[in-house]
Amino acid sequence: MSIANPYLMFLGDAPDQLAAKTANGVAKWRPDWCLGQLRLDGCKADIGLADMTLEEAAAAGAKTLIVGVANQGGFLPESWVATLERALDLGMDIASGLHMRLTDLPGMVEKASKLGRSLYDARHTTREFSVGKGKKRTGKRLLTVGTDVSVGKMFTSLAIEKEMRARGMKADFRATGQTGIFIAGSGVSVDAVVADFISGAAEWLSPDNEPDHWDIVEGQGSLFHASYAGVTLGLLHGSQPDVVVLCHEPTRPHMRGTPQIPMPDLQAVIDANIAAGRLTNPDIRCIGVSMNTSGLAVAAADALLQETEARLGLPCVDAFRQGAARLVDALD
Amino acid sequence: MSIANPYLMFLGDAPDQLAAKTANGVAKWRPDWCLGQLRLDGCKADIGLADMTLEEAAAAGAKTLIVGVANQGGFLPESWVATLERALDLGMDIASGLHMRLTDLPGMVEKASKLGRSLYDARHTTREFSVGKGKKRTGKRLLTVGTDVSVGKMFTSLAIEKEMRARGMKADFRATGQTGIFIAGSGVSVDAVVADFISGAAEWLSPDNEPDHWDIVEGQGSLFHASYAGVTLGLLHGSQPDVVVLCHEPTRPHMRGTPQIPMPDLQAVIDANIAAGRLTNPDIRCIGVSMNTSGLAVAAADALLQETEARLGLPCVDAFRQGAARLVDALD
Repeated sequence: MSIANPYLMFLGDAPDQLAAKTANGVAKWRPDWCLGQLRLDGCKADIGLADMTLEEAAAAGAKTLIVGVANQGGFLPESWVATLERALDLGMDIASGLHMRLTDLPGMVEKASKLGRSLYDARHTTREFSVGKGKKRTGKRLLTVGTDVSVGKMFTSLAIEKEMRARGMKADFRATGQTGIFIAGSGVSVDAVVADFISGAAEWLSPDNEPDHWDIVEGQGSLFHASYAGVTLGLLHGSQPDVVVLCHEPTRPHMRGTPQIPMPDLQAVIDANIAAGRLTNPDIRCIGVSMNTSGLAVAAADALLQETEARLGLPCVDAFRQGAARLVDALD
Repeated sequence: MSIANPYLMFLGDAPDQLAAKTANGVAKWRPDWCLGQLRLDGCKADIGLADMTLEEAAAAGAKTLIVGVANQGGFLPESWVATLERALDLGMDIASGLHMRLTDLPGMVEKASKLGRSLYDARHTTREFSVGKGKKRTGKRLLTVGTDVSVGKMFTSLAIEKEMRARGMKADFRATGQTGIFIAGSGVSVDAVVADFISGAAEWLSPDNEPDHWDIVEGQGSLFHASYAGVTLGLLHGSQPDVVVLCHEPTRPHMRGTPQIPMPDLQAVIDANIAAGRLTNPDIRCIGVSMNTSGLAVAAADALLQETEARLGLPCVDAFRQGAARLVDALD
């Protein structure tokens, strides 16, 4: 699966800016791929791209309409269907990150097939994976791990890829969630894979590569999250990372979604990832911490970063504010 | 899903005894549910039950035909279809543990539906699970964990259930694989669940219960298996066991399926399970070890059991040879 770009970002009738979070992420990290945005009547989101009609986008060369908007329940409303069908007619593929599949819309598969167009449901996977083999592969791998879900693992991974590429290093972001898949143009939604094949899917995602090539694998969940730790562990084993970067959000009152479970200690999260990761890469090490301090005042954030850096003995940065240079420096 | 008994065990044209391993396990643990065996021409397996025709089994009250035979690729051969269809006609449900679904056989769903019969594909699940919540549930839980796959976790779980029931304790074996599901009459094949829902499926499997009731949850995989550890961790978190029993096969030269990965130290496996299990049950403890010593001479096996017991400071038994009494004693 590889999603053709450039993209037209479809925001539908998004009720607020947050509903267009996926589209926003793609526009931030792949501005060159995003020709414009398409908003229906009543859309309250704006990701800062030029508004375009389907016809204007097609004329400008758009290859794929990205459904970059979320709604309650993750369904594809009837009111979007005419737009999606017209996009196919105009020669575009369609990619969606919603729970409901494009392929479940009546007549959509037949129409796409007749026109030679592709439908990508990024949250699902139709590929058959093998079980993980645990064998060492060539090339180098970095995996972002987290204290919790939604603490900046995708953002940090992309900031590291950007920094590496700016330095002329060979690096590829490897996406494991729907927004990341639109940004990378490919990937696998590991939490949607059948449980037996989590590590196998992660092995498929970062295959053998050149000795000086880095795969920057987008982490998922947390070993300390009671809902998702199985996905996290399979991804760790299959990615067999040489290095991990710990991601954290310091204002979180408890683990997201499980209010009775407190946030874990950062050193404990590093230790658990290193201990488990040794199974498939005995040389695994943690090179630093990436903290999303947007919920703190700058002075408090800087103090926390310095205190954490001293306590853990590792570079500790806010990749959002400061970029990933110090993390990439730590690879040497 | 609950599979009606008594069963007629279908062995098909099994090429050898090992191919009927599933049927054999069901006949061993639920002899009262197994009316007889049905073998086609050329069948080389015999699980020691009376041979019966479909008509004889139906007359004797068989409620479900169990496809208890495995073949290379896990498919349902054309040569079995007439037998399966006739079983439906005679009023039986069908349950299969093969990879290929009964529901994928042409016309089978329609036929079963018309006759009011059920088709159970134990290796798959059609149920929608929630993500795990990590909340403490009432009742007590024991989970078998392993150094590796196929080291006797199902056997040990069933031996513990048997011993508990013999003592008048409230205990239910909770099945997580296809053979176990036929033995329990229900359960969930956790390795076939979508990765996001592993711990949620395990929570569903052992719901709130009476304070003195024990769920004996069949473990899967190993935290130290590079292919399956994600399933193992999600099952551990979702089962929130009060106690674990470590299962081990002492003659294994390396982890099954990954020859480059050595077997882990027993204490390390206990420690890893206790550390991870504390997330959803802070009081988790290991009460003993169950070793399958069938590959050793009795004197060597007894010496190993004694040496391991002294080293770990925990009861160490061969549940196959000695039963689970000392493990159940250790609960006090």
